[in-house]
Amino acid sequence: MLIDIERFLDQLGDEARAIAMQHFRTEIDVETKSDATPVTNADRAIERRLREMIASRYPTHALVGEEEGGHIANGISWVIDPIDGTKSFVTGLPLFGTLVAILEDRRPICGMVEVPAMRERWIGVADRTSRNGEPCGVSACARLRDARLCSTDPRMFSGEAARAFATLAREVRVTRFGTDCYGYAMLASGHVDLVVEDGLQVHDVMAIVPVIEGAGGIVTTWAGNAIDEAFQGDIIAAATQSLHDEASRWLGQLRG
Amino acid sequence: MLIDIERFLDQLGDEARAIAMQHFRTEIDVETKSDATPVTNADRAIERRLREMIASRYPTHALVGEEEGGHIANGISWVIDPIDGTKSFVTGLPLFGTLVAILEDRRPICGMVEVPAMRERWIGVADRTSRNGEPCGVSACARLRDARLCSTDPRMFSGEAARAFATLAREVRVTRFGTDCYGYAMLASGHVDLVVEDGLQVHDVMAIVPVIEGAGGIVTTWAGNAIDEAFQGDIIAAATQSLHDEASRWLGQLRG
Repeated sequence: MLIDIERFLDQLGDEARAIAMQHFRTEIDVETKSDATPVTNADRAIERRLREMIASRYPTHALVGEEEGGHIANGISWVIDPIDGTKSFVTGLPLFGTLVAILEDRRPICGMVEVPAMRERWIGVADRTSRNGEPCGVSACARLRDARLCSTDPRMFSGEAARAFATLAREVRVTRFGTDCYGYAMLASGHVDLVVEDGLQVHDVMAIVPVIEGAGGIVTTWAGNAIDEAFQGDIIAAATQSLHDEASRWLGQLRG
Repeated sequence: MLIDIERFLDQLGDEARAIAMQHFRTEIDVETKSDATPVTNADRAIERRLREMIASRYPTHALVGEEEGGHIANGISWVIDPIDGTKSFVTGLPLFGTLVAILEDRRPICGMVEVPAMRERWIGVADRTSRNGEPCGVSACARLRDARLCSTDPRMFSGEAARAFATLAREVRVTRFGTDCYGYAMLASGHVDLVVEDGLQVHDVMAIVPVIEGAGGIVTTWAGNAIDEAFQGDIIAAATQSLHDEASRWLGQLRG
């Protein structure tokens, strides 16, 4: 079953890659959704195709996608983000990806981060994570002052959280913005040690959890809770428990 | 002569790419320079090799590099930034590049942006710019509210400049951080419309100028002056004059 799942995730990744690259760096029809996120024809085409493939193979599973909606259910659910990092996509930058998660009884158990423009794919299944089919793992970084931190945009934080993040970003060795799903992928491959974000949605994070955990990392909300359906947008992903603890000391008190 | 130069820039780009990729995503020896920029063995190895190649072919030319220094002179000078985007390099992100500029009487006339991990190279020579040997050009974007804006890190701005940039970033269609030289390359290829930065150094920008201008774009300081030896770190690069004018209205008054 798990080998089947891995093979099927690869098929979904291949399809997503082909569709994304047909649209990437071409004239694209960018609209602005009510939440001001650019949405492209590529988003819609990828979600439609992945929905068809999943529904045809697993007709009884629940299915949730960023563009077309749906609900997580008991049993098996799929969660799709057709293009995570749409802002990268519309500015020609390669750091966007298709995220697919499989949930069992509402908890993420398998995840795929497919990055078309880099020809890289991370799959986390059964407590191990691979990059392009080869096992990968997190770094041994245990201290904030040694850590390489990624986050998509400092403007995702507001108020107290913005101040706490700014302080955290000064404590670490290096901070890099603009990463979306690719920051988590780099964490799973040991090149980044810490990702801290806020304002994310369920479809942005469900695939991330098995990828990070399978690579040996720790991923929770700022308050230290597991990422589940009740996710409120705040996330700490770290290479080691001690690094996670240190980051949590700065951020955990902000979310009850 | 110009065809010779283009061929020679390609040779420099090939060497830089080979050295960078030997070091990228391996265990790297990251130190922290006094200015807190990570510097890697790859930086040093690339600069050393490019210096050798240039000095051997053009022994009378002046040569300036980020790591080993030197001075711009009258006649022909070369300016090298071995790895622009070292923070990307040390976090496994592909958006770093080797910059080589040729100056004639202290003004940039040719530039190369070589991006090893993307296998992409922009060369601006004699008022035209190519990407991987094919001509490329800027977008027609003429209004701030339609513009795709890139900048490396909002923390490069301080005080009044930080407030002006934050306002500008709210006016545009989309803002993306984390780009270094790649933002300018995307501008030269029409995927980004505007790049605004501050705190840059001469070696960060000299190669950019011929690449942007050869692609049809406009690049100046915030006050609207040409980028030359006296460069103080602030830059606006835009796809069109009217977009440049609009961005300058927000920023120009801040720098006399």
